[in-house]
Amino acid sequence: MNIAILGFGTIGSGVYEIVNQIQAEELKDCKVTKILDLPQNKDKLDIIVCDINDITEDESIDLVVETMGGIHPAYEFIQNCLQHKKHVVTANKAVVAAHMSDFLKSAKENGVQFRFEASTGGGIPWLASIQKAKRIDEISSFYGIFNGTTNYILDSMNTLNEEFETALKKAQQLGYAEANPSADIDGYDVQNKVTISAALAFDSKIDMKDFPCFSMANITYEDIQYLKSHHQMIKYIGQAIKKENMYEAFVMPMVFASNSLEANIPSNFNIVTLNGNTIGELKFYGQGAGKLPTANAIVEDILDIKNQISYGKVSLDKKLSYCNTLLKEKYLIRTNCPIENEWIDSVECKGANYYITTKAISTKDFMKLVNSISDQKAMIAKYM
Amino acid sequence: MNIAILGFGTIGSGVYEIVNQIQAEELKDCKVTKILDLPQNKDKLDIIVCDINDITEDESIDLVVETMGGIHPAYEFIQNCLQHKKHVVTANKAVVAAHMSDFLKSAKENGVQFRFEASTGGGIPWLASIQKAKRIDEISSFYGIFNGTTNYILDSMNTLNEEFETALKKAQQLGYAEANPSADIDGYDVQNKVTISAALAFDSKIDMKDFPCFSMANITYEDIQYLKSHHQMIKYIGQAIKKENMYEAFVMPMVFASNSLEANIPSNFNIVTLNGNTIGELKFYGQGAGKLPTANAIVEDILDIKNQISYGKVSLDKKLSYCNTLLKEKYLIRTNCPIENEWIDSVECKGANYYITTKAISTKDFMKLVNSISDQKAMIAKYM
Repeated sequence: MNIAILGFGTIGSGVYEIVNQIQAEELKDCKVTKILDLPQNKDKLDIIVCDINDITEDESIDLVVETMGGIHPAYEFIQNCLQHKKHVVTANKAVVAAHMSDFLKSAKENGVQFRFEASTGGGIPWLASIQKAKRIDEISSFYGIFNGTTNYILDSMNTLNEEFETALKKAQQLGYAEANPSADIDGYDVQNKVTISAALAFDSKIDMKDFPCFSMANITYEDIQYLKSHHQMIKYIGQAIKKENMYEAFVMPMVFASNSLEANIPSNFNIVTLNGNTIGELKFYGQGAGKLPTANAIVEDILDIKNQISYGKVSLDKKLSYCNTLLKEKYLIRTNCPIENEWIDSVECKGANYYITTKAISTKDFMKLVNSISDQKAMIAKYM
Repeated sequence: MNIAILGFGTIGSGVYEIVNQIQAEELKDCKVTKILDLPQNKDKLDIIVCDINDITEDESIDLVVETMGGIHPAYEFIQNCLQHKKHVVTANKAVVAAHMSDFLKSAKENGVQFRFEASTGGGIPWLASIQKAKRIDEISSFYGIFNGTTNYILDSMNTLNEEFETALKKAQQLGYAEANPSADIDGYDVQNKVTISAALAFDSKIDMKDFPCFSMANITYEDIQYLKSHHQMIKYIGQAIKKENMYEAFVMPMVFASNSLEANIPSNFNIVTLNGNTIGELKFYGQGAGKLPTANAIVEDILDIKNQISYGKVSLDKKLSYCNTLLKEKYLIRTNCPIENEWIDSVECKGANYYITTKAISTKDFMKLVNSISDQKAMIAKYM
């Protein structure tokens, strides 16, 4: 199987290393024969090309790995490759979350495969596990720590007693966070991953604009200390739940008991959980990002395509509506303004701040409550 | 695909329920058509037969699920079914650990499949994950909580402040532990599961008589309190590690930091971890036993056979020798007799007991140390 890689950054070079350098029996007949990169990198390796047509028009290439990231030109390149009857494997969550159904349609029309395990959960076999579980079970819900950067920040704040800004800077120095960290800390990364996971778990097209996504940037060292004194810990969570033909989904900080698994996830690791009717609760833990774990997930997809392994076609045919009154949950709000409202259960004062716990209320009511808060620095979280 | 089930206890009836009653697309062409049970149960269901030949001689049966447990007559029945060119799926860890290579040989000779996901980790997709990871990575080690009964006991001792005997009795009342709990608390159950996991992970026949298996029955409420005061928790662990053509394996209590995932595994859940060179550390958590989770794992095997899904043939061809000097680890011993020895690092007195921590020593030296202890109630554990 001849493979081309689009993009030769961290993930692309990881795929190249695994496919061309690891001595595994399964990989013997796989070879990276072309890599698309910028003209200034042309001399790095003799298989680098700079024109996508050198790949799409090359009939010897069976499969294309897309690791460029972003929506454009990744979208056009993926479509172009599928239309040229090449299997496509990608780690690009943004383009998959936005265009999954287009890609699946193109792949089907052209008799090839489109796979994206590495887009969500990095090296954790998460999407395959959803697909596998669904052969028998209905998946009623899933949730988890889908972002390693924010987990690294929260874990450093908790274990090293650091302020948010200090922990973020360290994450940037280690290459876990971008110079502009918004995609991680404001939740767009997790939003993409929840969208992809929910589409697979619930067999339905999910529009990420429908469900709420709250930033974790307002979590302070004091918040973590406050929760610690209550034997709790805050983590940044993506979650989705289905009831009949409706669903709810969130990206938001969530409060866990300090002896829960989630509260104890260290460093930049991820943990994701699914619930099925016969399998019960399954959790998967591992590196949700990084060169070799992510490249490993891509190569697992390549091998599944090569060996025609499939846990069933991805279908997005079910009509599922977003509904913000399915769940009734308790929330925690930390703000410097007192709130008076029928939904408030208890208030604790800490210095200039109020830690306000709500009664179990619907998302609809919670959104009204949030919109009534003028404090731009307010921290909001859901209780697990 | 017509399926016969051998044994109609908890697991067998779970498989029957899932295959014949769950409305999943994938299961539409699967049907349980015969169940082998005792003559006194003949009238329970009209598909019950009492003679194995009614199944082996029935050409309409494609696959046999063995859920009887124990070595005999499970061994003979499995071989008989394979020789009659029927695929076999089993949850029976004892017979798989003892005779895996015979079964794989018979299956190969007869052009059928032999699968045993449910034998280890119950509903957790553990063996499939080992097989999948191995397509790319060398698995250097694995460890985990492989037994839900003992985890339930330790968790109750820790969170409900119960004595060992009280927790064990509750586990028996809940059906987690047998009337004779030895297979769980003395480690034979975990020994089987480590043997099966190591064979798959390391591609080698593993003889469970080679590696040490320590009981957890000597762990007391006082031990748990002592460890709690050191921010630690004890769990009952199976572990194996490979270096070149040698391996070490253990079944024994292990001491974990209280903020580790293992320390926080609740109730009767399992967690198992593998380490690969590119994927890093992967952990899998779920129900390691119980009717529907175990039956789910069996049905996943059935569907993999039906859909010809395989992560590669199981080969036990590599020659791997047990070696008790690969690892150097620290151990904890609680005993009422003082020990004087060059390997001792520190001793703490608590009432009539000494809590003795060793230096990092080989298993060989540790075994010498253990054999020198006359206290039959001594508790021994390895530090993680």
